[in-house]
Amino acid sequence: MNEQNKPRPLAEQISELTTNRLSVYLRCLNELDQSGVRTISSKALADQFHLNAAQIRKDLAYFGEFGVRGVGYYVKELKRHLRQILGLDREVRVAIVGAGNLGLALADYPGFRQEGFDIVMLFDSQSQKIGLHSRGGVPIHDIQDFKRLVHREKIGIVVVAVPAASAQGVVNKVVAAGVKAILNFSPGALRVPDDVKLKSVDLTVSMESLSFHLAWGDTTE
Amino acid sequence: MNEQNKPRPLAEQISELTTNRLSVYLRCLNELDQSGVRTISSKALADQFHLNAAQIRKDLAYFGEFGVRGVGYYVKELKRHLRQILGLDREVRVAIVGAGNLGLALADYPGFRQEGFDIVMLFDSQSQKIGLHSRGGVPIHDIQDFKRLVHREKIGIVVVAVPAASAQGVVNKVVAAGVKAILNFSPGALRVPDDVKLKSVDLTVSMESLSFHLAWGDTTE
Repeated sequence: MNEQNKPRPLAEQISELTTNRLSVYLRCLNELDQSGVRTISSKALADQFHLNAAQIRKDLAYFGEFGVRGVGYYVKELKRHLRQILGLDREVRVAIVGAGNLGLALADYPGFRQEGFDIVMLFDSQSQKIGLHSRGGVPIHDIQDFKRLVHREKIGIVVVAVPAASAQGVVNKVVAAGVKAILNFSPGALRVPDDVKLKSVDLTVSMESLSFHLAWGDTTE
Repeated sequence: MNEQNKPRPLAEQISELTTNRLSVYLRCLNELDQSGVRTISSKALADQFHLNAAQIRKDLAYFGEFGVRGVGYYVKELKRHLRQILGLDREVRVAIVGAGNLGLALADYPGFRQEGFDIVMLFDSQSQKIGLHSRGGVPIHDIQDFKRLVHREKIGIVVVAVPAASAQGVVNKVVAAGVKAILNFSPGALRVPDDVKLKSVDLTVSMESLSFHLAWGDTTE
């Protein structure tokens, strides 16, 4: 990663909600590109995918001028820009800690590979799992070798899929190995230093939001 | 579910962010209860779990007066109230469509069962999977029998864990069966009627947010 050659946006201005929307735009552009669409206006993009045209223009304006008057966006070009903005123009290597049901399923999840994430290895502490592979062929390593292998394999993102009680301990180990980006599937609050980005996918919170809807009816978005 | 006997909040005032926070509070109270803590102030709750005390008071105020002056909250009582608010005071029965890696992992995910969600069945369209079970014993049924079984088994929430290309078709089938709450793991935008609540967990969006962080440094929350 050569940061000096990149046009650097004011990263602190870019909220997580913005990057989430950029991901969604990229997904839409992938679909359009696969359908052979070559150009699209922000309005047509918004209409087709139930997005907000003004928001699209505002989000993209952080990063430069991508639209062409009278044409809109060139689909392939905007796709390329979004992939660069999201850091997907280089290989992103990923390790998963926890070779339980969820960790093994994530290791073979085709959605990650399609977007250019390379799931390189799993880690577990249970000796009977070490040396085995996921169905898709991702090898399971001993968590004892975590730091050494993460350095050797240039892992950028670590996915934590361990029981809640072990999660903070694992996260501490991940941080100590110098990893700056963690995707966590364990419930509960976890602490990381300021320079480490932690995203948590709390499946129980999602289910409880649905349960609330069933109990009380519509909620606003 | 007897809605008439429930104190009905102005559900349209309660945002998704609020219900997400209520879930987090419940998780914190579970931990406190397990540790034998009997009462806690909003400030102590906030300090211990990195939350915002004013926000806690505001979120709970939608639903009544739970704090006691000079005491704070009674942990067990607030837990009970939150479970009621989130609709967890009754059994929530869940079916999963898609018995691939992710669907099977979700069927056996212990976090769901701990919070009172009952994963009753899986559905798939591949005939060789039908009649089999997840490792944890959740049976796999034919998607052809979806409507009949969902009614018979009083399924409240359906989890969709199918490839992106099949997702809208499956969601249409789920909606047609009268289900009002869907948790979707497929990438891309899906359409549901206004009275159906759809929550999407887009794992690729989460990963891309981390990738952005690796490429550009800190983002604001």
